[in-house]
Amino acid sequence: MRGTSIMIAVDAMGGDYAPQEAVQGALAAAKRGVPLILFGNQDKVLPLLSHDCSGRRALPIELVHCSDVIAMDDDPVKSILRKKDSSIVRAMQAVRSGRAQAFVSAGNSGAVMAAASTIIGRVPGILRPAIGSFLPTNTGSLFCLDLGANPDCLPEYLVQFAYMGYAYVRLTKHIAQPKIALLSNGHEPYKGSSLVRKAFDLLQKTKLEFIGNIESRDIFSGQADIVVTDGFTGNILLKGIQGTANAVMDW
Amino acid sequence: MRGTSIMIAVDAMGGDYAPQEAVQGALAAAKRGVPLILFGNQDKVLPLLSHDCSGRRALPIELVHCSDVIAMDDDPVKSILRKKDSSIVRAMQAVRSGRAQAFVSAGNSGAVMAAASTIIGRVPGILRPAIGSFLPTNTGSLFCLDLGANPDCLPEYLVQFAYMGYAYVRLTKHIAQPKIALLSNGHEPYKGSSLVRKAFDLLQKTKLEFIGNIESRDIFSGQADIVVTDGFTGNILLKGIQGTANAVMDW
Repeated sequence: MRGTSIMIAVDAMGGDYAPQEAVQGALAAAKRGVPLILFGNQDKVLPLLSHDCSGRRALPIELVHCSDVIAMDDDPVKSILRKKDSSIVRAMQAVRSGRAQAFVSAGNSGAVMAAASTIIGRVPGILRPAIGSFLPTNTGSLFCLDLGANPDCLPEYLVQFAYMGYAYVRLTKHIAQPKIALLSNGHEPYKGSSLVRKAFDLLQKTKLEFIGNIESRDIFSGQADIVVTDGFTGNILLKGIQGTANAVMDW
Repeated sequence: MRGTSIMIAVDAMGGDYAPQEAVQGALAAAKRGVPLILFGNQDKVLPLLSHDCSGRRALPIELVHCSDVIAMDDDPVKSILRKKDSSIVRAMQAVRSGRAQAFVSAGNSGAVMAAASTIIGRVPGILRPAIGSFLPTNTGSLFCLDLGANPDCLPEYLVQFAYMGYAYVRLTKHIAQPKIALLSNGHEPYKGSSLVRKAFDLLQKTKLEFIGNIESRDIFSGQADIVVTDGFTGNILLKGIQGTANAVMDW
């Protein structure tokens, strides 16, 4: 299986309920045949791995001991420079070396971002990394980016985010021509900040399936597969959705 | 009563269910003693005013006939220039002349904004008008502005929006020192777009009760009385709240 499959590096120390929840998730994936390398403090992680690693019924999980932990409120750049033996840095190095092909972490997203940029680097020509996530819609889901990596963007960044979303959605959802929308304060082409109006013009010149502006109240409609925005606005949108959903359910 | 009270101009033709709902609302207010002038097409509005305007039990409602109507999708600036006898333009002139002291409309918000700016004008020194609204929180409500008037802002605008919110909330909610927060992608002072970081520094130098950055997921917590943002971000937030609330209730 490992010969044809990809190996996933998992941050056992990341997230509000680490290492318990991260290890639980890793075990659940391993039971479905996904080969994993867990990065974390072995004194904390080993007791949670209840299976016998050496036995016949072993799950495809390896454990790499890391002595450092990057906390949720650590400074992203400083922490990856100082905590060389942290799970985030070690796991990212495993991806760079080819030992793993992807990295999953629920930890400090700024540190993950900084480690990815400095240790793995960007695709040639791509100016900035972006944080993307699937959001639920009435008909399935859409992929939204940037959700917080770049608070200040140039129009060119938004066009690149559209291409990055295109590549990701094509691969993960097998949609041949994903529909791409630009988040704006109105659906008309003349609506938006100066950044959005310039990005609109550039997106129209690409060969992407650009369907124009989308308002935040329409993102749940399912009309777009990808929604592109700058990292500041995307973060406000994402956390606004979280806050509203919690408030509505409370009320 | 009218000698000591203020007169409210009401747009009978504005909103998705005009004139029925606008007139219903006006009648409900008039029954509570609020003196009103309704602006709208008399052929449509008069049949909805079931009371006898000349009788002893007359409600404090006047009707001013306007032959034009500004539609929801009319261009704001062009429509107020061309539709001089519209309810929005005529009502705004009534406020300017002192015949009324406030104007209420559920119609084309861009046209209301443009009419207010050109016919009434701004307070001296105020650089831009803003759209503000109360949003519900777990403990009551907060006043948020700008919600869409200015897609591109300078840091100075945001500071002025804080003062405008301060004046409005003090008067309407009788809070002596309203707490003012700046919408950002993190609560730390260094978070935000370059616009937000500059506005943060300026707001700290005012004598306002500035409590720092607030994330969009925390606006329902009730920790702020006023949330300041640019018109693009505010519009994304407002419509994101609407869309999420509708989606969550649907699901």
